[in-house]
Amino acid sequence: MSVNLRIPGPTPCPDDVLQAMSRQMINHRGPEFAAIMERITSSLKRAFKTDNDVLTLTSAGTGAIEASVVNTLSPGDRVLVVSIGVFGDRYADIAQTYGANVTKVAFPQGAAADPAVVADALKKDASYKAVTLTHNETSTGVTNDLGALAKAIRGVRPDILILVDAISSLGSVPLPVDEWDLDVVFTGSQKGWMVPPGMAMVSVSERAWKAADEARIPRYYFDYKKAKSYLEKGQTPWTPAVSVYFAMDVALQKLEQEGLENIHARHARLGQFTRDGVKALGLKLLADERVASNTVTAVLVPDGVDGPALNKMMRTEYNTVLAGGQGELTGKIFRIGHLGLVSQEDLQACLDALKQALPRVGFSLVGAAR
Amino acid sequence: MSVNLRIPGPTPCPDDVLQAMSRQMINHRGPEFAAIMERITSSLKRAFKTDNDVLTLTSAGTGAIEASVVNTLSPGDRVLVVSIGVFGDRYADIAQTYGANVTKVAFPQGAAADPAVVADALKKDASYKAVTLTHNETSTGVTNDLGALAKAIRGVRPDILILVDAISSLGSVPLPVDEWDLDVVFTGSQKGWMVPPGMAMVSVSERAWKAADEARIPRYYFDYKKAKSYLEKGQTPWTPAVSVYFAMDVALQKLEQEGLENIHARHARLGQFTRDGVKALGLKLLADERVASNTVTAVLVPDGVDGPALNKMMRTEYNTVLAGGQGELTGKIFRIGHLGLVSQEDLQACLDALKQALPRVGFSLVGAAR
Repeated sequence: MSVNLRIPGPTPCPDDVLQAMSRQMINHRGPEFAAIMERITSSLKRAFKTDNDVLTLTSAGTGAIEASVVNTLSPGDRVLVVSIGVFGDRYADIAQTYGANVTKVAFPQGAAADPAVVADALKKDASYKAVTLTHNETSTGVTNDLGALAKAIRGVRPDILILVDAISSLGSVPLPVDEWDLDVVFTGSQKGWMVPPGMAMVSVSERAWKAADEARIPRYYFDYKKAKSYLEKGQTPWTPAVSVYFAMDVALQKLEQEGLENIHARHARLGQFTRDGVKALGLKLLADERVASNTVTAVLVPDGVDGPALNKMMRTEYNTVLAGGQGELTGKIFRIGHLGLVSQEDLQACLDALKQALPRVGFSLVGAAR
Repeated sequence: MSVNLRIPGPTPCPDDVLQAMSRQMINHRGPEFAAIMERITSSLKRAFKTDNDVLTLTSAGTGAIEASVVNTLSPGDRVLVVSIGVFGDRYADIAQTYGANVTKVAFPQGAAADPAVVADALKKDASYKAVTLTHNETSTGVTNDLGALAKAIRGVRPDILILVDAISSLGSVPLPVDEWDLDVVFTGSQKGWMVPPGMAMVSVSERAWKAADEARIPRYYFDYKKAKSYLEKGQTPWTPAVSVYFAMDVALQKLEQEGLENIHARHARLGQFTRDGVKALGLKLLADERVASNTVTAVLVPDGVDGPALNKMMRTEYNTVLAGGQGELTGKIFRIGHLGLVSQEDLQACLDALKQALPRVGFSLVGAAR
């Protein structure tokens, strides 16, 4: 029995994507790699729904957060960071680390960002150069209404930079970059893309390129301009994680075959299925259900239950790997990933395993039967 | 007929290493990944011959150069960059980008760095905080006498930071980190390690950790301290390129099986074999032979020959992929990689192909027969 890997990334990968990972190396400065770069780039533009440049970086998603800061900002620039959890806070940390003057607008755990509150913050201070948003907060299982946030922000500041962490959303839930007029939007290969980790993908608008011309935070490895100039030759400035590019090439063809709308519908259906199933067990969701994520569900550890012990039992006895809580939520929640290569059967198996494990760690399922 | 990939990285990978790349994803915060981290780390310490901490980063080698700068230096710090080619120059660029006060000691293309000259530079100015060295200059096919350089440097400045780009040397040629008292030494998975690109490995001395405590260049993604604190849990701070870790785990076991000394001897033998073969064709080496690299050979494009056309013919008609020149050497040299998974047969096939191709691009082999 294969493991039911139900963490919000790295996600399980299809067999043909994994097979592509085992291809022999090629010259990353040769014509075969250039053809891959071209296919990947044009497919990603369709997935991002953008005519902006789309660049690829060899890094984790956190590298892409850093890249968005160092490429567009100067020390002292005012940045409004909208945080609804660990990854919003991380955006603030990174911007502060590089010398930005950060104001954080935080919302309670499990809630989404309120566009009116964000708009008010921008009205109070006209000096903000950029606002950062987390589309899907992986730590709490909440998806922000990014379209509404962008609209509210543009209503106050038509020309502000909007930087978006879409690491665990893009490819899985709707995110039309150009329609929503977003300047920098990035994601990671190990999320909805069904590819192993190692590649971050980022779209860069004309407004962001102008900001890059003026930005004075030092940058080298993550320099968008270097990435763009090499992309014109079908290359990356530094040696890329070639195997991950092979895999992304295959995965994007699969995603295009399934169709973006179908993928979004599948994630919406499976998100609802997971939440319904969790509630039917008598468990409670961390997220306000109106904004609950369709890529990851955060479940409150019931009173009297040892969260890490539950996760361990699920792993060792039920072949099901869940994620724990992060930051303040350590031990208080567990998380079920349902993005990328995931079916209703995978989630049913996970719920079935929970139904068996929970009574063994002290949770009465009686409530669920009522 | 499979391609004879003779570039200095990414290098061809053994079948079982490639198979490991196609393993299904696992939880990068679970016990299985922790066991892999522990095996990789202890094996790398043996390969580096060090008791220092050894960290892994998900990045290209250039990311590891950047990491060595941002973790140990503050803006304004005096740095002596010893350059013998493109990658030495890149070290200077990166240090300058991050605000270091760089003095470059450059040596002619094809030459190694002279320890006495480096020592003199240090004597002239006692304020240097660090010196950077390239062990093997991939762009010119020259290996510096790193032991002699380190000794000369320590003779003048026992406590200076010595930062070493060993990307294309470590694992293939001798580099006893502790014996030579080197503070930061880094390499990349796609070189002698026979693993696809995506991972950089770096050793950090006690002296370097002390420097990190004081270093004020901002850092986040490449922060050594974060990497160390997560390593203690068998993790990386950001999602690692999991597949590359699978592959490295297998490759290190193979390397330990062959034995470090045997690997070094094989590279020395094949380096000499390549140089002898190239000269027998009547071609000239860029490098002073006394310091020629045992991982990559740079060959001067003969007068009247179109270098890129030769490389293209080798690729399209002889299934042999060579590297071109970089920077000022573009079109002036071609390079033959002989590191990692490489045998005498691979190099003989490369030389045979050159023997056939060269007359077709206007080079008379007559001289070679004399």
